[in-house]
Amino acid sequence: LKKMLALIVAGGSGTRMQSPVPKQFLLLAGKPVLMHTLERFVSFSQKIQTVLVLPENEIVTWKNLCIEHHFTQPHQIVAGGKTRFASVRNGLSAIAEREGLVAIHDGVRPLVPAEVIARSFALAEEKGSAVAAVPLKDSLRMMLNETDSQIIDRTPCRLIQTPQTFDLQTIRHAYAEATHEDFTDDAAVAEAAGFPVYLTEGSYENLKITTPEDLWVAEAILRRS
Amino acid sequence: LKKMLALIVAGGSGTRMQSPVPKQFLLLAGKPVLMHTLERFVSFSQKIQTVLVLPENEIVTWKNLCIEHHFTQPHQIVAGGKTRFASVRNGLSAIAEREGLVAIHDGVRPLVPAEVIARSFALAEEKGSAVAAVPLKDSLRMMLNETDSQIIDRTPCRLIQTPQTFDLQTIRHAYAEATHEDFTDDAAVAEAAGFPVYLTEGSYENLKITTPEDLWVAEAILRRS
Repeated sequence: LKKMLALIVAGGSGTRMQSPVPKQFLLLAGKPVLMHTLERFVSFSQKIQTVLVLPENEIVTWKNLCIEHHFTQPHQIVAGGKTRFASVRNGLSAIAEREGLVAIHDGVRPLVPAEVIARSFALAEEKGSAVAAVPLKDSLRMMLNETDSQIIDRTPCRLIQTPQTFDLQTIRHAYAEATHEDFTDDAAVAEAAGFPVYLTEGSYENLKITTPEDLWVAEAILRRS
Repeated sequence: LKKMLALIVAGGSGTRMQSPVPKQFLLLAGKPVLMHTLERFVSFSQKIQTVLVLPENEIVTWKNLCIEHHFTQPHQIVAGGKTRFASVRNGLSAIAEREGLVAIHDGVRPLVPAEVIARSFALAEEKGSAVAAVPLKDSLRMMLNETDSQIIDRTPCRLIQTPQTFDLQTIRHAYAEATHEDFTDDAAVAEAAGFPVYLTEGSYENLKITTPEDLWVAEAILRRS
């Protein structure tokens, strides 16, 4: 198996959370969201090398949180950029390895199950890319203008999550080739550079903490497991 | 304001829940899911008339549950059909009123907020239809075949929920006109009959109970409110 890396991207501000604390630092079951996220990858494999991209002005806060919460898992810290794209690119540049598989993951998806990480690395090893995705539970419509919409068949549609795992050289190449920074995810960057994107089964539990409700939901899922 | 009706459709079996109990009867905070759903509409307005569509072989169970849980809210019970389409059509036929507004709602969406119901009736009164919908939080891709997929711009896309509220005559006409029964929701039936479908803001809390995790999540949301 190739060298496994996890690139955890924690860039968002707390605006949608109506909280002055960036959402990756909010407490989930008594511990910052981001620590849960890092621990999921370390629990999956002690051999995994973790790289954490943080806004420059949050690095000191994070280090203090690590002391306060006795978080001693080794991880490399990299300063992010203005966009998610710039943050991931900085993270990829900071990785010393030349070869390997890198799982790029949202810092605010703290409940990613081990089996999703495992499937993602396995498919990326085989195919060069593996993007976690789930089918839609609800019907889907597309707005045509402010009032009119039309139904879309949801059967072939997938909601995209992270990890999005790639061959390290491939995704570095894709980020170097990009002609703009308006990508919503890494799969789109890879695709724009001409690399095929393969989907792997994600999980409905792998939720993204973006609203106060999500934190409550995450607590409920943690309590149950 | 026109006469308001709620048509609650509870047709599903419990297969995805890994439970022999139909999911609409599972206990949420000590009470069957379906009772929460009915109470949301009654709490919204005591004037609302509720019609409950149930599989024929579950009607006795439901009546016993009502006795056991001291559920005394008056509601009309109608036997459902083999498909969701047939169940809604049976429900529409059983309504004695000739005119009014009918909110068609999934029995397994027990957390629908009052403001979503209110918005839905208000827009349906004005435009003839109102379908609850929310923007997507995740990126969206479409499978082109078993392995290839392409990104879809999620900005104009909406996840469709219920209530789906219609002018009673309109939706009856649409169900009568339908040439097949393979519709995923009532909006699709209305649209196929040539009626415009208008969207109204739903809620991320308005979740559909389809898996065991969803019940835990719903409990968490109830505890918080």
